[in-house]
Amino acid sequence: MKGKMKRVYLFEEGSAKMRDSLGGKGCNLAEMTNLGLPIPPGFTITCQACNEYNALGKKFPAGLMDDAKAALANVEGKAGKKFGDAGNPLLVSVRSGAPVSMPGMMDTVLNLGLNEKTLQGIIKKTGNERFAYDAYRRFIQMFGDVVLKVEKADFEHILSAKKSERGVKLDTELNAADLRDVAARFKALVEKETGKGFPEEPLEQLELAIHAVFGSWNTPRAVTYRKLNRIPNDLGTAVNVQAMVFGNMGSDSGTGVAFTRNPSTGEKELYGEFLMNAQGEDVVAGIRTPRPISELKKEMPQIYSQFAETAKKLEAHYREMQDLEFTIEKGKLWMLQTRNGKRTAAAAIKIAMDMMKEGVLTKEEALMRVSPEQIDKLLHRQIDPKARPDVVAKGLNASPGAAVGRVYFTADDAAKHGGKGEKVILVSVETTPEDIHGMAASQGILTSRGGMTSHAAVVARGMGIPCVAGCEKLKVDVAKKTATVEGTDAVIHEGDILTIDGGDGRVILGEVPLVDPEMKGEFGELLALADSVSRMHVRANADTPQNAADARKFGAKGIGLCRTERMFNDPARLPIVQEMILAETQEARKAALAKLKPVQKGDFKGILAAMDGLPVIIRLLDPPLHEFLPKLDDLLVEVTTLSLHKGDERVLREKERLLHKVRELSEFNPMLGHRGCRLAIAHPEIYEMQTAAIFEAATELKKEGKNPIAEVMIPLVGNVRELAMLRKLVKKTADGVIAKSGVKLSYMVGTMIEVPRACLTADEIAKEAEFFSFGTNDLTQTTLGFSRDDAEAKFLQLYLKEGILKDNPFEVLDFDGVGKLVEMTVQLGRKARPGIEIGVCGETGGEPRSIDFYHKAGLDYVSCSKYRVPVARLAAAQATIREKLGNVGERKGE
Amino acid sequence: MKGKMKRVYLFEEGSAKMRDSLGGKGCNLAEMTNLGLPIPPGFTITCQACNEYNALGKKFPAGLMDDAKAALANVEGKAGKKFGDAGNPLLVSVRSGAPVSMPGMMDTVLNLGLNEKTLQGIIKKTGNERFAYDAYRRFIQMFGDVVLKVEKADFEHILSAKKSERGVKLDTELNAADLRDVAARFKALVEKETGKGFPEEPLEQLELAIHAVFGSWNTPRAVTYRKLNRIPNDLGTAVNVQAMVFGNMGSDSGTGVAFTRNPSTGEKELYGEFLMNAQGEDVVAGIRTPRPISELKKEMPQIYSQFAETAKKLEAHYREMQDLEFTIEKGKLWMLQTRNGKRTAAAAIKIAMDMMKEGVLTKEEALMRVSPEQIDKLLHRQIDPKARPDVVAKGLNASPGAAVGRVYFTADDAAKHGGKGEKVILVSVETTPEDIHGMAASQGILTSRGGMTSHAAVVARGMGIPCVAGCEKLKVDVAKKTATVEGTDAVIHEGDILTIDGGDGRVILGEVPLVDPEMKGEFGELLALADSVSRMHVRANADTPQNAADARKFGAKGIGLCRTERMFNDPARLPIVQEMILAETQEARKAALAKLKPVQKGDFKGILAAMDGLPVIIRLLDPPLHEFLPKLDDLLVEVTTLSLHKGDERVLREKERLLHKVRELSEFNPMLGHRGCRLAIAHPEIYEMQTAAIFEAATELKKEGKNPIAEVMIPLVGNVRELAMLRKLVKKTADGVIAKSGVKLSYMVGTMIEVPRACLTADEIAKEAEFFSFGTNDLTQTTLGFSRDDAEAKFLQLYLKEGILKDNPFEVLDFDGVGKLVEMTVQLGRKARPGIEIGVCGETGGEPRSIDFYHKAGLDYVSCSKYRVPVARLAAAQATIREKLGNVGERKGE
Repeated sequence: MKGKMKRVYLFEEGSAKMRDSLGGKGCNLAEMTNLGLPIPPGFTITCQACNEYNALGKKFPAGLMDDAKAALANVEGKAGKKFGDAGNPLLVSVRSGAPVSMPGMMDTVLNLGLNEKTLQGIIKKTGNERFAYDAYRRFIQMFGDVVLKVEKADFEHILSAKKSERGVKLDTELNAADLRDVAARFKALVEKETGKGFPEEPLEQLELAIHAVFGSWNTPRAVTYRKLNRIPNDLGTAVNVQAMVFGNMGSDSGTGVAFTRNPSTGEKELYGEFLMNAQGEDVVAGIRTPRPISELKKEMPQIYSQFAETAKKLEAHYREMQDLEFTIEKGKLWMLQTRNGKRTAAAAIKIAMDMMKEGVLTKEEALMRVSPEQIDKLLHRQIDPKARPDVVAKGLNASPGAAVGRVYFTADDAAKHGGKGEKVILVSVETTPEDIHGMAASQGILTSRGGMTSHAAVVARGMGIPCVAGCEKLKVDVAKKTATVEGTDAVIHEGDILTIDGGDGRVILGEVPLVDPEMKGEFGELLALADSVSRMHVRANADTPQNAADARKFGAKGIGLCRTERMFNDPARLPIVQEMILAETQEARKAALAKLKPVQKGDFKGILAAMDGLPVIIRLLDPPLHEFLPKLDDLLVEVTTLSLHKGDERVLREKERLLHKVRELSEFNPMLGHRGCRLAIAHPEIYEMQTAAIFEAATELKKEGKNPIAEVMIPLVGNVRELAMLRKLVKKTADGVIAKSGVKLSYMVGTMIEVPRACLTADEIAKEAEFFSFGTNDLTQTTLGFSRDDAEAKFLQLYLKEGILKDNPFEVLDFDGVGKLVEMTVQLGRKARPGIEIGVCGETGGEPRSIDFYHKAGLDYVSCSKYRVPVARLAAAQATIREKLGNVGERKGE
Repeated sequence: MKGKMKRVYLFEEGSAKMRDSLGGKGCNLAEMTNLGLPIPPGFTITCQACNEYNALGKKFPAGLMDDAKAALANVEGKAGKKFGDAGNPLLVSVRSGAPVSMPGMMDTVLNLGLNEKTLQGIIKKTGNERFAYDAYRRFIQMFGDVVLKVEKADFEHILSAKKSERGVKLDTELNAADLRDVAARFKALVEKETGKGFPEEPLEQLELAIHAVFGSWNTPRAVTYRKLNRIPNDLGTAVNVQAMVFGNMGSDSGTGVAFTRNPSTGEKELYGEFLMNAQGEDVVAGIRTPRPISELKKEMPQIYSQFAETAKKLEAHYREMQDLEFTIEKGKLWMLQTRNGKRTAAAAIKIAMDMMKEGVLTKEEALMRVSPEQIDKLLHRQIDPKARPDVVAKGLNASPGAAVGRVYFTADDAAKHGGKGEKVILVSVETTPEDIHGMAASQGILTSRGGMTSHAAVVARGMGIPCVAGCEKLKVDVAKKTATVEGTDAVIHEGDILTIDGGDGRVILGEVPLVDPEMKGEFGELLALADSVSRMHVRANADTPQNAADARKFGAKGIGLCRTERMFNDPARLPIVQEMILAETQEARKAALAKLKPVQKGDFKGILAAMDGLPVIIRLLDPPLHEFLPKLDDLLVEVTTLSLHKGDERVLREKERLLHKVRELSEFNPMLGHRGCRLAIAHPEIYEMQTAAIFEAATELKKEGKNPIAEVMIPLVGNVRELAMLRKLVKKTADGVIAKSGVKLSYMVGTMIEVPRACLTADEIAKEAEFFSFGTNDLTQTTLGFSRDDAEAKFLQLYLKEGILKDNPFEVLDFDGVGKLVEMTVQLGRKARPGIEIGVCGETGGEPRSIDFYHKAGLDYVSCSKYRVPVARLAAAQATIREKLGNVGERKGE
């Protein structure tokens, strides 16, 4: 037989495990009660009752108030007071508390049970008329506001008016008579606004308050918050009813909050503050300055030691740093709340490692206690937390880190001044592949248009340059070399100093002090621990020796993607690249390539040396050739202008020739055009040159006693025959170079998996590929039919807003679509070539939820930009642990 | 125990079933021998022996010549002659014969076994010295040419010289002495060229001839032919050695060829020709005019009736129209060859249907006898086969049918003159979506650039307009309005008359008579028969009432794709469409849409009426909006010119505004950009208008007593939430219109499947879709990562040439990649919604091999352009039959 559903639990009937039914607050009060801690008695109405209430059309389920009254009687017994009793009244607090911490719901009503009659009982019992009227006027305001929906401001007006009348400034300067008058005026306000008298009956007050808590679950604000934070709608909220204790009953009373460890640094010390003769809300109001918790030791040594003992007990019990609230009523300590404490990233790491060393946590538990995203913040320069800068505008936090520099509005200017060693901030409407040289020379990038996956954002993150993107209030006039900020009179000129914070999107005029990231001891220890448990390893995407060296410092175990086209884009080399493209014959093309070879070889040598002993996957040329030529639009305007003005005939002819070539190479959909391996099938000499450069570099290093491990990656393969043809070319060239050098060198040839057809025929392709590397950017573009640049500009935001997409698929892998292809590829690939090395080098390779997916799919490694390497190392470890523990979800909030 | 491999078969030891080992010629000779027909005795060396020969490095497998000699002895016995015998010599022919008919291999050596000694035996036996020397000189030339590789022309020079010496013109005017001298000179030539005397020993001659046949399998020409025609390299060729018979032994001898039915019309009659006192090569040489076979009846009634009897017997035996060769030697009929006869498309249909009616073939067999591609030729106007036009250039046969008209070089001119009823040929470098109005007004289209899937080709095929594309010799100067043809002095001016044949790519100056396609009785019968066996049905892609009516005439069972954007592109409507796009507010956009609604409704009404009672799938707006605006390039030049020339300020401002909008809408990769359902999610009012127009049209028709069946298709869905949102919008609008109309109308809402993600999540999408329709053009673009326009222009030809692709994936479905997605979609879709209607409306929906795949994948229908409907009907029937018969392959050639 199914028993009657229990809707009301006394604190002693619950436990921390009943979060789903008692909510976060309720279950912790229950747990503390059962630990024998001094908790004012009370009870909790379950979240399920809230759901019933809403399902019934805002009606209590039958018997709910009877159960509540029974529980209340129990509380009365423990408190030795009676609810509504004129002589010895029990007052209670009523608070909401969902399983997940959720601002947007009704918070708290204190002192419930007060009315004209019980008020007299309080006066009589405390002998403190002012205290009693103060409690009364606070109750009427809170109840009026949160239960009866009377404007809070209207109460504040009355209180201000009273203070003016009395010629005082602070609430504390009002006496008992003043407060009695205020309470009377509050009640009149309520009657005027609601058309009814203020509810005098305590049980009616309680009933109305429960209604209000239940109702607050479905306010628009709460619904929106849940939608944004992906919290299910069917959790419901619990209601906690608890006997009041008062910290404002004299000098032997007080109230405070404390953490069991320092939430900023993670140090193991009680950290918090308290106020004597005060209520909780006084601590928040900031009228009196709270004192550090350590001073309580002098003030009330016994209470302090009881509290410290309790804190220790709770931390040990929960095996987690706790955030505590307490009240001292007439020399007696009461605990009001405990919950897991919020902390900075640095503190999270230190606490996790310390608790592991203390034997409280296993290493797996310690690793699960730090969120990978937190780590990201520790890896970049930041605006000094002590600085109070004037923020003139905010954009998207597109690439983390803060930067200070002089403003330039074009990539050329930025490159020119940056090249001289000047610190530069590139400010632009948006950036294009032609701006790379200017971006690379800048300390930071600020754009007025584009989102988290705009060109500026993606490239900046890849380069590890701070970037604030899509700062829409910024109106940039590149021609005039100025920018203004909408809604302000700020004008930014070329050469002005600007500070930006890519971690939170702040834009600040002038210079603000920055602080360097610190790789503290526990940070390194945590990551080493992560590596020791991870099944996957982490590589970096890096295109320069400097980036390779940095990545290695961040713990990368190799390079998963070295893009060779970024080397082509170097302004010193671009003319040679253009010469190669404009070549009319294969001979002329080969001559230009011969000039490029030594510089590419130099790059490869530097990168391979920096990654000595670790694998470096080098992707041969990928973008369409027109990306290295001037833009068609610009040329059209130039040629039209030159021919109308009858300018220099020779220049015109030259430009026309260039225009002709650009037109010839231009494509309707370059993303799906003549690029990647398709280029090499038309012009094998390009890959030949690149392969020779790679293996000349590697064999020279080998002769120098180093251990270079070069792996050659062919991009955009969709058909095994493409790969077979190019692999043959690469092997012939590489083997020739190696044979000539006389050293021994083994290497792999593999392919990027970035079009759906490669996934669908992965078994065929695996026959020719020694490794696979997912290029999730392009694979997402083709699988979804989204051009990243266009989607970002035209409809991605709308899709996220409308809930069609839950995440930006270029940031978080599209598990249902692209993810299915990833799984299929791994299965087919391993079937055809057991043990084939499979990794990912797209943007999602550094994103924790995606990394968890890649772990489950059976990948060998993920590769990401150097600054994401530590994030990925932790995420990879957590993925392994999660699998081992049978998929433990994210920790629930509180 | 495995017996010794049999390499040599006497004719009576073989059969028609042994094509793989005896080759086409050999197996038919064997079959005829066993039917008791008069076949000169002989034997066949197997194709496997040829493979052994090549595997052994051009050496005979051990014992081969012994086996051949044994077989030869058997032939000697039957012929009553001896090979190499001076008194009664046996002469033989040696012919190659692979399992698949293959020009490019050694053909024939006749009279083998002749030498100075046996020659005397022939003279003695025939008493005809001239005949003997004629045979001898022919043998030396053939053997010298095909076996010893002496230049054929050198023999011809000797013969010509002799004729000059003798002052005669014809070979027949040379007497025995002349021919003896010619033979002597031939032998001298061979000795000079080969450094050795002409082989006198008959067995050596035979051995060398067999070497030559085996070796001819791997000549470059043969290898290339096999590659082009996808014939496996490991078939090998057989060698047929057969006793010679002579049709040139006097007036009681002769030779001829005949078909058992008329190969042009299919009529049931002996059709062929013969020559008395001649050898086979004389018929071909054309020196004497052969006589119709019917005249043989008068000439040699008994022989004729024996031949007619034999022909009948062979056709009945093979159950197929036969192509026969015979020789009459001194009043005796010898059959030399039989094979299935080639025939025109019309004949193929008539023969198949007649043979079915005669009870020879089942209906399935009759249907398998006609190739779907043959049918295509019957559906278009053609150049009168009797005309002998001067072809000035050839391009690609991009869209079938012939056309005559006056040349115009721009779409506007073509539209202007075509609109007045003038017959117009649009000649252009290439076409773009903006040229549609000019293309639609033309009789034919000729472009100098672009391939089989260029814009011109695809659109022309869709519209059923003849098109010759990629005619590279044509140099078009649009500015001067002229075109020249490389390598000729032809100049084409505006207004000149031109004839083109899109069926074979011919371009002809001036007018050539055309003949209309005829839908003969058997044609219709065949297609009706096809429909009666097909599991799938066939719909048409059609956008206008006229096309819908035509499609219905061609047998379409509905419309699988009605594109609404083609209606937007109508020049009368384009300004309203542009007004809609340029609208700054939703109100202004709705106002423009309100103007479009009545015209769209008119279109829909016409189409639904034409397809009364059959389903019409209407796809809501798909292309990105910028396709309806002027090109960015053109505007840039205009604005630059206007602003430099300080032209009309008002015009400049207007153009600048347009330029601004075009820039705003322009995309990097429009194929993957803001189009399809993405447009409608941003601007729901567009689909709202279209839906209202559809259902207002449908309900009005219903009131008129018609039975309109409208189905609404949402394009480019990749995520079920897109479809859910838009389906709701469509249903709300449609149900509103229907409710208001008061009639009852049911309809379906479904989606196009054209991005891989839709396939991967087809189970989810099926929950919101009542039907799926594969858009294989876009699905191929995204799956392969190929932009069709760019691939065509940049690398597709190279990929086909290099063998990376076997077919153009936009013409024939990419079975391994896109096909896998198609199968997955059908499985997932049917799992989630059993019985969901699934079809295809992309280009491949009209291609026979793809149709076979769609049948196997379980689709309900294919949809294609109207002219492909009959092709698809037959292909669908053949797919059903092939499955039923356990996948009978294509008929082998012979």
